[in-house]
Amino acid sequence: MRTVEWRDGKVRMIDQRRLPNQFVVAEYSDYRAVAQAIRDMVVRGAPAIGATAAFALALAGQNSPAPTRAALLVDLDAAAAVIRQARPTAANLNWGLDRLLRRAQATDGSANDVRAALVAEAQAVADEDVAINRRMGANGATLVPQGATILHHCNTGALATVDYGTALGVVRAAWEGGNPVHVLVDETRPRLQGAKLTAWELKELGIPQTLIADNAAGLFMQSGRVNLCLVGADRIAANGDTANKIGTYNLAVLAKENGIPFYVVAPTSTIDLDCPTGAAIPIEERDPAEVTHMGGERIAPEGVAVANPAFDVTPARYITAIVTEEGIVRPPYETGLREVVERARVI
Amino acid sequence: MRTVEWRDGKVRMIDQRRLPNQFVVAEYSDYRAVAQAIRDMVVRGAPAIGATAAFALALAGQNSPAPTRAALLVDLDAAAAVIRQARPTAANLNWGLDRLLRRAQATDGSANDVRAALVAEAQAVADEDVAINRRMGANGATLVPQGATILHHCNTGALATVDYGTALGVVRAAWEGGNPVHVLVDETRPRLQGAKLTAWELKELGIPQTLIADNAAGLFMQSGRVNLCLVGADRIAANGDTANKIGTYNLAVLAKENGIPFYVVAPTSTIDLDCPTGAAIPIEERDPAEVTHMGGERIAPEGVAVANPAFDVTPARYITAIVTEEGIVRPPYETGLREVVERARVI
Repeated sequence: MRTVEWRDGKVRMIDQRRLPNQFVVAEYSDYRAVAQAIRDMVVRGAPAIGATAAFALALAGQNSPAPTRAALLVDLDAAAAVIRQARPTAANLNWGLDRLLRRAQATDGSANDVRAALVAEAQAVADEDVAINRRMGANGATLVPQGATILHHCNTGALATVDYGTALGVVRAAWEGGNPVHVLVDETRPRLQGAKLTAWELKELGIPQTLIADNAAGLFMQSGRVNLCLVGADRIAANGDTANKIGTYNLAVLAKENGIPFYVVAPTSTIDLDCPTGAAIPIEERDPAEVTHMGGERIAPEGVAVANPAFDVTPARYITAIVTEEGIVRPPYETGLREVVERARVI
Repeated sequence: MRTVEWRDGKVRMIDQRRLPNQFVVAEYSDYRAVAQAIRDMVVRGAPAIGATAAFALALAGQNSPAPTRAALLVDLDAAAAVIRQARPTAANLNWGLDRLLRRAQATDGSANDVRAALVAEAQAVADEDVAINRRMGANGATLVPQGATILHHCNTGALATVDYGTALGVVRAAWEGGNPVHVLVDETRPRLQGAKLTAWELKELGIPQTLIADNAAGLFMQSGRVNLCLVGADRIAANGDTANKIGTYNLAVLAKENGIPFYVVAPTSTIDLDCPTGAAIPIEERDPAEVTHMGGERIAPEGVAVANPAFDVTPARYITAIVTEEGIVRPPYETGLREVVERARVI
């Protein structure tokens, strides 16, 4: 199944907190519960969050008893404000909500017409996401040398999207095109999306991989065993500065120091032209227990202070290119990012 | 108690695998069991390994039934060869063994005279380690600005030595001298010596700290919240290249990129003048389960390939200075390292 999908008036999601040990599908019929699921990381990954937010707003339309189109639009605005609070960093959350609100505004007729339009639009967001990822994969695969070893951070696969993946979609496209790549999967503390999700996806796909601690990435780069880095993005500012999972900046600096290309792979929905630079991107601070506990067991002394920023910002100067569904953007990024966003605009 | 000590003809050690949740003391009367304890990381940290190896050889003297001095020397050589295999990277293991073998050679008289000399020499190694760490602490404290935030990797405290610590000894000396430092403790995957041991030691000492995932180090450096980095060492080559816990190289590159001083703190027993550069330092590969399991629980899919190098090598050009008990050595390192080693030589 897809990471997130609409079925019989409900939103269904793979509960990513249970992988790789258990495959559990969670079902939601209230938009507030979906917002909480985004917060709790039942679903994560910027494009998956974007589609989930869209489905959540479709659900909010169903949940609302508003008898008229006008009353429903008011309810939708309120629901969008709630969903928007779920997580602060990923641009796709706002993008998905704004796209659905625009669709509602553009839909004439009854409240039920608007409700139907929201479901259709959310489904379109989800379907397009898969198509977009395949196009990104094809674009990015041209950057991958034959037999390359690819260092990959966090999870950017089918689970981070509706299906297929962003950076991992590039890996997959290269592999499906006959390129015998090898993926160096870093575990991605604190939540271990690399060890838990990426390793699981690559195993399912049969793509060769080696799992490493995040700390080993430098050694592998320094010793000439990495040909390129591929990462996703949670928000790309107008100048190319990129917020992504904590530790991405470390890899970008190490890649630059060792002359290794560093590519960001993200759909145009992750580009936030209203955000001039990385300094304007909000960085989420998450629960200290993500660092101090592992599977319920305490791994640090009681009472120790913890900082747990979930993302960092990689300045554009460390990024070799940004791969989008509309093409590969190279520095200087300002013009190129604006062009791909305009090309991709639907409504 | 000290990390490792000799009592009533036995070697006692704090079992560091059980901290911070349990404080357990393990006792050994056979040198082979001590070698295994080093391998299993009951004790770890280069200076602690050096002292433990010395005690293990004193134990080998006791274990040996050799009736003559000559026969005992043969047994000691054989025992040293076994202990030497325990772990490959830390220079102090060889240093401790070689020092005890020299003492045995230099001791005339009966086999029992040699046995007694070995115990006395191992005890001297342990006592000197504490004194050396205090001198290193005092030397290093001069490098720490008032109120500095210090990024620290792995564990280099009392537990990594016989007592007091190397890099963490500098933190402690600064703190004891009235400098209100703050320590940014990285957790140090895969074995979490930062989260489990350093956080525990700093808590016991009452020194302010914040625990972070290794991945967050870059963000803290980039955002101007780190004044200096302090790390220990497992082996320092003649040219200053330094092997230390995996992830040290990452921090050194990030520090250089952000203009942050990066100091290595280690006793002269960690300097291996026979090792010309870092390329000659053997890097230990440890059990994949350190990466795939946490407290018995599997955190990665079954059957995934793992690389788990325990150390990396930081080229000398990234190191601002090397703090030893004989003084602070600055680049170019060749001359300075040779000088401090010669100054420290005992027998």
